[in-house]
Amino acid sequence: MCDNTPRKINFGPGPAQLPIEVLHNVQKEFFSFDNCGSNVMELSHRSPAFSKIIDDAEKDIRELLSIPDTYAVLFLQGGATGQFSAIPMNLINLKPSQTADYLVTGYWSEKAAKEAEKYGKVNYVIPKQEKYHDVPEQTTWNLTDDASYFYYCANETIHGVEIHDVPVLPNKAQIVCDMSSNFLTRQVDVTKFAIIFASGQKNFGCSGIVLVIVRKDLIGNAMKSTPVNFDFKVQLSNNSMYNTPPTFSIYISNKMFDWSKRQGGIKALEKQSKIKSDLIYSAIDQSNRFYLSEINPSYRSRVNIPFRIAINGVPDEKLEKLFLEEALRLNMIELKGHRAVGGLRVSLYNGITIEETEKLAQLMRTFQTIHCVEAA
Amino acid sequence: MCDNTPRKINFGPGPAQLPIEVLHNVQKEFFSFDNCGSNVMELSHRSPAFSKIIDDAEKDIRELLSIPDTYAVLFLQGGATGQFSAIPMNLINLKPSQTADYLVTGYWSEKAAKEAEKYGKVNYVIPKQEKYHDVPEQTTWNLTDDASYFYYCANETIHGVEIHDVPVLPNKAQIVCDMSSNFLTRQVDVTKFAIIFASGQKNFGCSGIVLVIVRKDLIGNAMKSTPVNFDFKVQLSNNSMYNTPPTFSIYISNKMFDWSKRQGGIKALEKQSKIKSDLIYSAIDQSNRFYLSEINPSYRSRVNIPFRIAINGVPDEKLEKLFLEEALRLNMIELKGHRAVGGLRVSLYNGITIEETEKLAQLMRTFQTIHCVEAA
Repeated sequence: MCDNTPRKINFGPGPAQLPIEVLHNVQKEFFSFDNCGSNVMELSHRSPAFSKIIDDAEKDIRELLSIPDTYAVLFLQGGATGQFSAIPMNLINLKPSQTADYLVTGYWSEKAAKEAEKYGKVNYVIPKQEKYHDVPEQTTWNLTDDASYFYYCANETIHGVEIHDVPVLPNKAQIVCDMSSNFLTRQVDVTKFAIIFASGQKNFGCSGIVLVIVRKDLIGNAMKSTPVNFDFKVQLSNNSMYNTPPTFSIYISNKMFDWSKRQGGIKALEKQSKIKSDLIYSAIDQSNRFYLSEINPSYRSRVNIPFRIAINGVPDEKLEKLFLEEALRLNMIELKGHRAVGGLRVSLYNGITIEETEKLAQLMRTFQTIHCVEAA
Repeated sequence: MCDNTPRKINFGPGPAQLPIEVLHNVQKEFFSFDNCGSNVMELSHRSPAFSKIIDDAEKDIRELLSIPDTYAVLFLQGGATGQFSAIPMNLINLKPSQTADYLVTGYWSEKAAKEAEKYGKVNYVIPKQEKYHDVPEQTTWNLTDDASYFYYCANETIHGVEIHDVPVLPNKAQIVCDMSSNFLTRQVDVTKFAIIFASGQKNFGCSGIVLVIVRKDLIGNAMKSTPVNFDFKVQLSNNSMYNTPPTFSIYISNKMFDWSKRQGGIKALEKQSKIKSDLIYSAIDQSNRFYLSEINPSYRSRVNIPFRIAINGVPDEKLEKLFLEEALRLNMIELKGHRAVGGLRVSLYNGITIEETEKLAQLMRTFQTIHCVEAA
């Protein structure tokens, strides 16, 4: 540590905190990565040292998620938002319909659908939801027979809606999934998907990097106007290095994949995720509606938990403000909910430990004990 | 230092080495930036601590280059290559001609022109050059009367061609300039340009970031199919944070701008650049054609110097290989020329000191003394 400031516990939606051992590891080799006399930032992306980093990162993520060779793994710039454009640009021409089905279950899938409208026809599978507290039954979904692809967001970071099972679609459309916020927090059968993508700053590193796992046979259909570094074919044939990649972000991803493996792999991470979210949901569910979660329990997110603090069922912004102050006093930060939702939000990415989550759950109980009485 | 490996001197074309004091500075605050208890990678891009970083970075670069308020400063992802697409997408509709003039003087402007062909008409101002050793006289340029913009690359990193004066165009077209490799190495009158852009990994930090300086009145003309995070209007109105920006890369840029100011600003950096390139060109010009530079001296780059080692005027790959080995023995790396050109290349970005350049110039003289005699 460079000063006496205690380390903060960051429960924010991202960029997220990194495991302290990853930070130590990076700091230790700050002046000379792998005894090569340079920081990773200073390495040529064509150097053997950096090639090893990106190759190791790919090898580790393939191992963690059992990604078959029939899938490409791309490390790209532009974040998940970049993929909101890149995906229709690369896939909308898969079928003559040039139509994509979008399941909009919150802020991010809505953004993605809106962006896709620039590139083809977008069919909204369900009516616009007033509040994103639930996902309508699949029997009610309006699917396109010959959709180029079906798009959904596995976990809505802002609204806290997680779709726990991969939809089985009667039209057998290619499934594209934004897993930015729940990536590496649960087991996933990659073969059910055409594309999985996730930005780095939540569960596997820092911002500036988005991982795109794409079935190779779908590559090569990009619209002519696709920017060259959004063209999956170009990036695949250049090993994600058509142009200089975000080398430091890839390095941090590599460290995080390695850390994930040392945690016991995806099963262990899923277990940790369950334990952590159970701690928070228990505090909510046992609070006699002092803490309110408005999401249908079947779609509760294990990684982003928005909730309100309420008196007699009515959200109380003063109490919420007080809770944030109490949390800050205990070094817990970034618990304020998104402005679109209000209230509070706990994000439980992989860099958050069970102990840290317990500390927050404890605060929730203590805070309730004090303020529920006061309010009564 | 974490081990006994001596620090390498990286003469590569980028990612480039960083000043050692910048690395020390970053390492010192690795666990707690500005006493806030988190690494910068772990900060929310909406936090006051990160807002200060990006605001300071903008303030410093405005000060360094005297950028007027009529220009926006954007920090974007996708590198300079991303801008090869973004620029025509944002500017090609400026004029009904939907035509852009491209001056192709090497590898990178050629790539940019090819990419622009996707979005409008590209007029090649000069005939395709067989070897990029020179720039034809401006009197011979074939300009479009009502071009949406005129594009050139101020410094060709691979071919070592630098255009030292901003062209004065009879058609008064908006001038767009790729300054990736000579950015912050010389004074520049920003008001002569519509857009200046530069990627970070050469003169102001690490990869994953591209700085775009764009006159505000030109913003708002993007093609409908422009990906949202390539749309200058969207990024301007969101202070470069429409989506999560590459926070760590912006942090390093901030450190580098601050360092640049402490060097004495742009005048001091220009002087250093001249001293360093004079050292290498002197070694070349005083070598009696043992070292060959094939570029017209009026267009010699001060930052990327490709050269050959020759016996009786004929490039000798064996000697070049030997030179690389000798350099490596003295901890000087990344001196191999690009495969498109061959031979050797010295890149003298701002992170390279005069002393380090002297060391290389000394090696050039010593190597010549030994091997010119042997060859004779």
